[in-house]
Amino acid sequence: MNLEDCRRLDAEDPLAALRDQFILPSGVIYLDGNSLGVLPRTTPDRIANVIANEWGEGLIRSWNNAGWFDLPQRLGDKVARLIGAGAGEVVCTDSTSINLYKVLFSALSQAKAAGNRRVVISERSNFPTDLYIAESLCREHGFNLRLIDESELADALDEQAAVLMLTHVNYRTGAMHDMQAVTRMAHQAGALMVWDLAHSAGAVPVALNAADADFAIGCGYKYLNGGPGAPAFAWVHRRHADRFEQPLSGWWGHAAPFEFSPHYRPAPGVGRYLCGTQPILALAALDCGLDTVLAAEALAGDGDGMAPLRTKSLALTDTFITLVEQRCPGRFTLVTPREHARRGSQVCLAMADRAPGAYAIVQALIARGVIGDYRAGDSQMPDILRFGFTPLYIGFEDVWNAVEHLVQVLEGEEWMRPEFNRKQAVT
Amino acid sequence: MNLEDCRRLDAEDPLAALRDQFILPSGVIYLDGNSLGVLPRTTPDRIANVIANEWGEGLIRSWNNAGWFDLPQRLGDKVARLIGAGAGEVVCTDSTSINLYKVLFSALSQAKAAGNRRVVISERSNFPTDLYIAESLCREHGFNLRLIDESELADALDEQAAVLMLTHVNYRTGAMHDMQAVTRMAHQAGALMVWDLAHSAGAVPVALNAADADFAIGCGYKYLNGGPGAPAFAWVHRRHADRFEQPLSGWWGHAAPFEFSPHYRPAPGVGRYLCGTQPILALAALDCGLDTVLAAEALAGDGDGMAPLRTKSLALTDTFITLVEQRCPGRFTLVTPREHARRGSQVCLAMADRAPGAYAIVQALIARGVIGDYRAGDSQMPDILRFGFTPLYIGFEDVWNAVEHLVQVLEGEEWMRPEFNRKQAVT
Repeated sequence: MNLEDCRRLDAEDPLAALRDQFILPSGVIYLDGNSLGVLPRTTPDRIANVIANEWGEGLIRSWNNAGWFDLPQRLGDKVARLIGAGAGEVVCTDSTSINLYKVLFSALSQAKAAGNRRVVISERSNFPTDLYIAESLCREHGFNLRLIDESELADALDEQAAVLMLTHVNYRTGAMHDMQAVTRMAHQAGALMVWDLAHSAGAVPVALNAADADFAIGCGYKYLNGGPGAPAFAWVHRRHADRFEQPLSGWWGHAAPFEFSPHYRPAPGVGRYLCGTQPILALAALDCGLDTVLAAEALAGDGDGMAPLRTKSLALTDTFITLVEQRCPGRFTLVTPREHARRGSQVCLAMADRAPGAYAIVQALIARGVIGDYRAGDSQMPDILRFGFTPLYIGFEDVWNAVEHLVQVLEGEEWMRPEFNRKQAVT
Repeated sequence: MNLEDCRRLDAEDPLAALRDQFILPSGVIYLDGNSLGVLPRTTPDRIANVIANEWGEGLIRSWNNAGWFDLPQRLGDKVARLIGAGAGEVVCTDSTSINLYKVLFSALSQAKAAGNRRVVISERSNFPTDLYIAESLCREHGFNLRLIDESELADALDEQAAVLMLTHVNYRTGAMHDMQAVTRMAHQAGALMVWDLAHSAGAVPVALNAADADFAIGCGYKYLNGGPGAPAFAWVHRRHADRFEQPLSGWWGHAAPFEFSPHYRPAPGVGRYLCGTQPILALAALDCGLDTVLAAEALAGDGDGMAPLRTKSLALTDTFITLVEQRCPGRFTLVTPREHARRGSQVCLAMADRAPGAYAIVQALIARGVIGDYRAGDSQMPDILRFGFTPLYIGFEDVWNAVEHLVQVLEGEEWMRPEFNRKQAVT
């Protein structure tokens, strides 16, 4: 595979025009859209308008006149199209962690109402905030949190299992679960299924209703391009939405918030998963980000925008894997699964033979404008070089150039410079 | 009192220059800053810069390079100066409702650790979202929520009282509690004191540490001018901050979030009251709003900006009360306390003799550009016309003109027009 092949793939890419939706910094190949998505071209004007006109001129009147009240639901309906959910089943609100608290609380409430199962199962390698929230709720509600490796899943789903809580695409490895099969396994064992879609929504096809999942949450600032700390989302299957209350029972989740009744009465459906007043600027920015992903629908023959995005995403990650193995032979181990059905939209590498340099190589690449990130290893997992490939704005020549930089960083031993070996906080 | 008196008060106003900090719509007298504050002049450029440069150009690097990580603490230190708290004691994050959930959970945890008290006391007239959150936590933790009128407070604080949770300035009446005296009463009865400062922060002097309160939360989008749905804040007294965990234990409240440890270890101090990734656009807008209030410090001889703001606020509300009583005799009853020590920064009127028209008069005023709001009554409380007076940008001639419009709305029976009598959602 060579540069010409990559250019040909770009020329044939039916989604190539989608890149124009973004303002990308020059001199940067951005392989970190799995951590923070890029800036949509529409966002600056939209937010300037929200600030100057809706807020500055409209002031309090904009709650009614500018449609601020139902932004969480309107944006939720857009997210629903990306995750195989129905209109009215999703709200955009709060943070991923807080939404997980809400839906996991509901799941535990259901388990308590249904019987004596008192175990929540998750993966040891799940994103830590999910485990922290689960720890807290389990302690409070008398459940045990059982952390397992993926291979132990079938055994772990025993008669004590109340809830299986997994992240669909692992943040550190890029490995993807088979949502339908895992959900079926959980249900057959009598457990509820909670999915974290932080690295899935807008990145890979998701079919929550088809998989018959119970609850899901996800992130607005990664593949949905909603901006730093964008509001997250929550989905609740219709069979649960009206039955359980979440404990963050603020006035925005009340059936009639402007009655100012002293007693809480939950809104019908997923509306009860709202809590306090929502950040309108942040929601408006998320709206622009969602539109960049939904734009793929118009390019898809059948209106399913995630299918062509997935095709391109796999081609991008295939290309990266091929080029790294071809041009940096023996230097890296592939951590992300090679099998398409098991791979998200990122590729994670470890140093072969646990050689040093993972952190410094990432820093040297960033200094060259190739922005990926580093995730420190632990007893279970090596240090990782993580590269996200967002088909909306990454092309095949970008992949070639990224690997070319990687080759140069390695060949010149550039990564050994002291400035690339001083650690600071990373996201 | 006449127009000339009002103009003389404006001419003598030492804070008059602060109005230039805002972009105010022309033709509007905005008496709803207690619901949604106005737009600071610095906000559009600040947010445009955050979007274009910090996000668009800096992308993921801005978590380190643009100081995104510690925004909740840096803004918290600014809020601290407005509420009599110390640096490092406040975080700006999430919504008021969610922050109340966190601090009230901590208060209940402390009560459970300390003994058998199992009653949370609040006012029936408290802002509903506070009562909804308290309802939820009480049900979950085996506490009773006892709702009282203010006159019943001393009796209610019995040997069962675990927590007294009050809003300092009532959203509907504008009545203000004596924070020091009430906190002392709660402590003498053996109860913890939780204050909601939604209508206090930036509006009236608050001295949390001097009052020896235990927990407080407040709102960023009212008197702090942070924009629609701006992040809220939480304060925890230093004696509690390290001792109790809140249950929304997301990774931003972890002692070392980027260790990605599978187990939660709370950050020292109030940092543990953070949960998920924070909305950077919304925090940056709040930062601009906070600076508009802190600007009063520079004009105050002793650096205490809230003192001159309070002096002007009381003069504004005094003027409004005087003019309404002088020019609309017999039409309204004053709901807000006349006594300065008991009054927040708003004036609430009810129709005299329960005459109809409260809603329609507010609508007719809004149509004339005098923006206050309406709060429906109930069995305890009449319908209310609510007018907030923000000394940062409201002047005495504004007050004169607002009352002049009110006189005209009443004299011409303008409020009886059908278009002013159709109700829609209001905030």
